[in-house]
Amino acid sequence: MTPELIAELITAAEARLKGVVRRTPLLTSPFLDRIAGRPVHVKAECLQHTGSFKFRGGWSAVSALPEGTAGVIAYSSGNHAQGVALAARLRGLPAVIVMPADAPKLKLANTAALGAEVVPYDRQTEDRDAIGSRIAAERGLALIRPFDEPQVIAGQATCGIEIAEQAAEAGIGEADVLVCCGGGGLASGIALALEARAPGLRVRPVEPEGYDDTCRSLAAGRILSNEGAPPSLCDAIVTPQPGALTFPILQRLAGPGLAVSDADALRAMAEAFFRLKLVLEPGGAVALAAALWHLEPGEGPVIAVATGGNVDAEIYRTALAHNAAPAG
Amino acid sequence: MTPELIAELITAAEARLKGVVRRTPLLTSPFLDRIAGRPVHVKAECLQHTGSFKFRGGWSAVSALPEGTAGVIAYSSGNHAQGVALAARLRGLPAVIVMPADAPKLKLANTAALGAEVVPYDRQTEDRDAIGSRIAAERGLALIRPFDEPQVIAGQATCGIEIAEQAAEAGIGEADVLVCCGGGGLASGIALALEARAPGLRVRPVEPEGYDDTCRSLAAGRILSNEGAPPSLCDAIVTPQPGALTFPILQRLAGPGLAVSDADALRAMAEAFFRLKLVLEPGGAVALAAALWHLEPGEGPVIAVATGGNVDAEIYRTALAHNAAPAG
Repeated sequence: MTPELIAELITAAEARLKGVVRRTPLLTSPFLDRIAGRPVHVKAECLQHTGSFKFRGGWSAVSALPEGTAGVIAYSSGNHAQGVALAARLRGLPAVIVMPADAPKLKLANTAALGAEVVPYDRQTEDRDAIGSRIAAERGLALIRPFDEPQVIAGQATCGIEIAEQAAEAGIGEADVLVCCGGGGLASGIALALEARAPGLRVRPVEPEGYDDTCRSLAAGRILSNEGAPPSLCDAIVTPQPGALTFPILQRLAGPGLAVSDADALRAMAEAFFRLKLVLEPGGAVALAAALWHLEPGEGPVIAVATGGNVDAEIYRTALAHNAAPAG
Repeated sequence: MTPELIAELITAAEARLKGVVRRTPLLTSPFLDRIAGRPVHVKAECLQHTGSFKFRGGWSAVSALPEGTAGVIAYSSGNHAQGVALAARLRGLPAVIVMPADAPKLKLANTAALGAEVVPYDRQTEDRDAIGSRIAAERGLALIRPFDEPQVIAGQATCGIEIAEQAAEAGIGEADVLVCCGGGGLASGIALALEARAPGLRVRPVEPEGYDDTCRSLAAGRILSNEGAPPSLCDAIVTPQPGALTFPILQRLAGPGLAVSDADALRAMAEAFFRLKLVLEPGGAVALAAALWHLEPGEGPVIAVATGGNVDAEIYRTALAHNAAPAG
């Protein structure tokens, strides 16, 4: 894709999303500033419809489908699932979502409640791409890929447009923008938007330890995969490798990646609870964790995108049980 | 106060608060609509600075103090405490806050961390008004009352101005606006703002069972007190009776009050967790509880003000433990 085409896609997505997608706030707390030793601004995408940024890309892709489309299909651990399910419902289209049988219960329940047909599969023994392609062919459904899809990237870019506007309002000209990263759809979309509208802001992807394929790929200059890592609580972002579309964008525009532990993701969830009154899921909290505890020393502001809040109560209670004392 | 004076105070407060106070979002979820059987809009004041609407009134009062003021004093169970503490810090004034020794730990810790001198007292045996008046006189401090104070009411009214604007954006011309109610500062401020800017919207105060002094006072047409109720989890709104300034405003403008149980407050906290990704404290969740489970049947939209989120982790974990299953 040429830069001109990308800019056109983003501008068109911005128009389609206007009035449908929520403009999420950029929040601060003096307590978080104190922990990080610098001003921390949190883009609260957990407040987006369906509880994660994924509705942006979902609506961008579904609203761009031609008249007469029979329906849509997607595969997802749960946030893209809900985003596509709601988008399809708004467009009046049936949706089939292929989801891991062991996805968080809240994500499975919500996707079904939003009217989608949920097709469970076994992550250990089955291939979701194969299942998705087979059903798409059998039923004539449009496949909405979770990140390696231009309309999805253009939709996620609208989060970057808002960050550019909100940073300007807050007087921030230069900063790193830490983004929770799975396949890189949001990180690359934000990077493209910032390139055009706030070139002093730089995306840095943040991943869970053991699933830092984007970090390592950026360092190596070529796409590398995750292999043999133990399970992570960050179910939303344990994608095996960067996307074929997203990686070149990040390679051109992003700064070095960061990786954080599950324990730090849980700590960041507790800080968001105490200091921002936001519910975050583990995979939606890694960017905040990196902002609080993993940045190189410095005094400039940092922006962290809190990407989602679809977490089961049991895990949330664990996060609070292990991090219960207010820092004061 | 004449209506003209009140309108002037509110307009002046709006100007002083602009750019300092956060414009909080009005959020929705199809899951909440399904529970209530009508569209539910939640004004997320837990996202205000210091985690509750109280910073509005705190900054309104502190920013209106004359040059040369030596400092401020307030008494509060914890939210007005933090609002005044932050406001004083922004103005560069010392603050003394008289707080119950058994206030939530998070509220005590935050108030101190915001730079205030916390003076604990025993709610069973000591009179906070007497302590506050004595220290104010001894040290020459300006007393910022939590609700029966025109500048505080004018500050809280800015929440109503935002509701008027956001309701218009959402196409809502007529609706009840449910407001968590202690002494009535927020409910009366919102009522005044709506009278001027959205006369189709009507405030209804919501209180905890056993602390429904405003409900009963409105029904009786005179100020009644709470007596002999068991302790409530809703520490923020267990005020003994409506204010001398706030009650006549509510009597003139508000609809009937509603009372909800602690169990329903905890249920509403869980729904806000699952459906809105908002952290609410019990006293900040009673309006949402009333919107979900206590309204008379009807189809029109309802607006619930989620007033605060300063809750200790233990109580929050209890709310999730007892209400852990997503409604789906």
